[in-house]
Amino acid sequence: MDKNYQYLHDKFKYINDLNHALEMLCWDEDVMMPTGGAKARNSALASLTTTIHQQLNSPEVASCLQDIDESALDQWQLANIKHMRKAVVNATILPERLVADLAVTTKESTQAWRTLRGQNNWHDFMPLLSKTVALVKQKAKIKAEYYGVDAYDALLDEFSPGVNRQYIDPIFNELKHFLPQAIPMIVDKQRSKVSLPFNQSFAIDKQYALSQDLMRVIGFDFNHGRIDTSQHPFCGGVPSDVRITTRYNEHDFLSSALAVCHETGHALYEMGLPQKYITQPVAKALGMAVHESQSLLVEMQACSGPEFIGILSQYAQRHFGQNDSLSKGNLMKHLLKVRPDFIRVDADEVTYPLHVILRYEIEKALFADEITVADLPAIWQEKMSDYLGVDTTNNYKDGVMQDVHWSSGDFGYFPSYALGALLAAQLFAAAKHSNPEIMPSIAQGNFKPLMSWLNHNIHQYGSLYTFDELITKASGKSLDASAYIAHVKARYM
Amino acid sequence: MDKNYQYLHDKFKYINDLNHALEMLCWDEDVMMPTGGAKARNSALASLTTTIHQQLNSPEVASCLQDIDESALDQWQLANIKHMRKAVVNATILPERLVADLAVTTKESTQAWRTLRGQNNWHDFMPLLSKTVALVKQKAKIKAEYYGVDAYDALLDEFSPGVNRQYIDPIFNELKHFLPQAIPMIVDKQRSKVSLPFNQSFAIDKQYALSQDLMRVIGFDFNHGRIDTSQHPFCGGVPSDVRITTRYNEHDFLSSALAVCHETGHALYEMGLPQKYITQPVAKALGMAVHESQSLLVEMQACSGPEFIGILSQYAQRHFGQNDSLSKGNLMKHLLKVRPDFIRVDADEVTYPLHVILRYEIEKALFADEITVADLPAIWQEKMSDYLGVDTTNNYKDGVMQDVHWSSGDFGYFPSYALGALLAAQLFAAAKHSNPEIMPSIAQGNFKPLMSWLNHNIHQYGSLYTFDELITKASGKSLDASAYIAHVKARYM
Repeated sequence: MDKNYQYLHDKFKYINDLNHALEMLCWDEDVMMPTGGAKARNSALASLTTTIHQQLNSPEVASCLQDIDESALDQWQLANIKHMRKAVVNATILPERLVADLAVTTKESTQAWRTLRGQNNWHDFMPLLSKTVALVKQKAKIKAEYYGVDAYDALLDEFSPGVNRQYIDPIFNELKHFLPQAIPMIVDKQRSKVSLPFNQSFAIDKQYALSQDLMRVIGFDFNHGRIDTSQHPFCGGVPSDVRITTRYNEHDFLSSALAVCHETGHALYEMGLPQKYITQPVAKALGMAVHESQSLLVEMQACSGPEFIGILSQYAQRHFGQNDSLSKGNLMKHLLKVRPDFIRVDADEVTYPLHVILRYEIEKALFADEITVADLPAIWQEKMSDYLGVDTTNNYKDGVMQDVHWSSGDFGYFPSYALGALLAAQLFAAAKHSNPEIMPSIAQGNFKPLMSWLNHNIHQYGSLYTFDELITKASGKSLDASAYIAHVKARYM
Repeated sequence: MDKNYQYLHDKFKYINDLNHALEMLCWDEDVMMPTGGAKARNSALASLTTTIHQQLNSPEVASCLQDIDESALDQWQLANIKHMRKAVVNATILPERLVADLAVTTKESTQAWRTLRGQNNWHDFMPLLSKTVALVKQKAKIKAEYYGVDAYDALLDEFSPGVNRQYIDPIFNELKHFLPQAIPMIVDKQRSKVSLPFNQSFAIDKQYALSQDLMRVIGFDFNHGRIDTSQHPFCGGVPSDVRITTRYNEHDFLSSALAVCHETGHALYEMGLPQKYITQPVAKALGMAVHESQSLLVEMQACSGPEFIGILSQYAQRHFGQNDSLSKGNLMKHLLKVRPDFIRVDADEVTYPLHVILRYEIEKALFADEITVADLPAIWQEKMSDYLGVDTTNNYKDGVMQDVHWSSGDFGYFPSYALGALLAAQLFAAAKHSNPEIMPSIAQGNFKPLMSWLNHNIHQYGSLYTFDELITKASGKSLDASAYIAHVKARYM
């Protein structure tokens, strides 16, 4: 083994250990920590983050990366080195002053957002958001220059490496043509399909038991993970100990049940990452778009189709008692309801991409200096009206101020959600084509054939390939909107 | 502020952050982690421990400690520097080889103990224990030479700084004279007091609610801590976020209720440590004996006396329904039952010190090379028979193999338990003498006067004073057995 490679391997294993602590402390903060623990926790998190930064910034790491003999490395090791280089660049490229300013400003901006959104107060939020945008622009410029790309592409790459405007634009354009025409037709078709409301209370402990049943069915390994409750569902932890969360609504068990399916999709990706390199950068998940494809594939493609809703109905009636409102047919009406509305996170899978495209277009224009933060409400209003027929005049709360992402400086993040949905459709179609047993098995509550395909084609590769290589290898082509559009047509039209 | 002091302050604040991560990950391991997470967790814990060790071992820390101008420091800062020096010495004095051997051997020995104890297999356990003892002797010798003390005193100091054989011997001798005579008299007196058995099942969720009630009554701040379930009750976390645990027996709510009182005593010590220095060594609890005094003061002195048992009976009947077996009188019979028996952790407060004295005498002889590991069963048998009239012939499981401490190399730990019990009695007597409102308040379920006294006299000082200084300041004299003996006489004879 090359001495330089060995050094880097051990150094990144050590960094992985520090990240283990970070991940678990973040999980604990959201799930377990009493509020009085925040000050000491923030200090601990900051010290761990600083330690990781120092490790990445060390002269030994730099010289090993420079001196390493790449001809002696295999495919995995080469990819591993590539990700190490990128981690080092990202940790060292920004001036310390900018990193500190960004941390302070996004924290202040996010805290203010929590209050101001409730007050529908765009006026006071705008200067804070402007400050954040100015700093993110500085960051994007530095990265863009280093990588020789456009500023917004540099941001996109932070969340979904290998994805840029050139990749996204034609895909989103296709959706922009299809969806605004399809949605009114679907809404019209669904007008006659009125669902029975759930007129019962769903006890939390029974919903918890149902959650565990669903996780087991999908293939979650409780020897390597657990489920808890938090304000917003998420998937955290580490590959050998994945921590997913949900929250329960006593009047609607579906909300939690589908969130659990979603997070279990994320969890199985983490659990399936390549064990042989598990402490190394090359074994990490490939990025947000792929991660989201795994959660949406399970939640929307597999668990919201008629095959699985039959199983879900059986489980629901086992836990909550026999009830017409829990029939397969009625659950389908609940789950597949399409309705253009204000809020992205509450959107159905058909209107959802338009919420993302709107944000993507705004972000592109913002980072191309074609618009300013002051223009956002008017543009938001115009696009919401165009794409979804929703009027957000003077409604900042449910309009331009609805997401936390911009306050926290996460520009370039949103596209991952829609790309994940499209990729989910494309991978699910490829999986079904490759193994005709997948759908009949799901109808029997058996996810093994599907999960085996996903593990074989996605999970086990970690970050070995680029985004486009991985998708092409798995589905025979680059990502496009056709599988998603076919899915919408088949399920809704 | 002296530049050297400032550097050391910041360095130990950083180490405190890493310890925060360690503490929380250890809590998580015992309370939350699925077994499959162990490998990655062990790696993360090892990396954090190594990082702390490297920080303590850095040349900058050494030179700051050497160059610091102590004349410029106040009392707290001087004590802080003293504890820093000790931490650095303890981190650097042992050869790395010995530290590694100790870690591996005690881990193997502890793992083997879990199996071999169940098999009553002393024969196969003995060589492992011998190996552990040999390594601990090497460690003790190095520390003893450095500090200019006897080998076993060096071990005692690890757990309860400032306590040595000279301090302990006269105290334990007094108990050895009193208890073996008192116990048969107490047993005889209790013969007529037969308790009603608990003929009901105590639901876990109700026991959990009772636990929270008891914690609130004693003064636990749920904004700075929580209670969960683990195999063995413990108190972990950090001062601003104290994590206590218990376990529930559906046939006996008292077992958990008293464990909760015990751990809450530990928790309030941690919560009461001096905020001004909370990131620094001087703000840490003073050692195991003082920590155990705080838990036993709450559990045995305050919560097992007739004043509080009346309150406990009310709470029990509120949660579990009215029942004669839950009356104050019957709970007293359950809680105050004295019975010489095999197992230390199940022992009542009267026989308990003899279990410890037996171990203390064996450890002293072992580290004075007066006996070998092969002699332990015979000596155990002899002392158990002498002190408690219990015959352990061929019963290694419930005799010499009952504790995990020796397998894990924790020689010198046991005395803390008995010293804690004696100190609890001495402090409780001093508190009651100082504030006559303490007992009537406890009888009303109000722990504020007691906790205020403990905070004022013990908690708020952290590690500012030595063991003897702290106790003398709080109770007017050095630790002795008189208050404990008076307590046994008053409660049992």
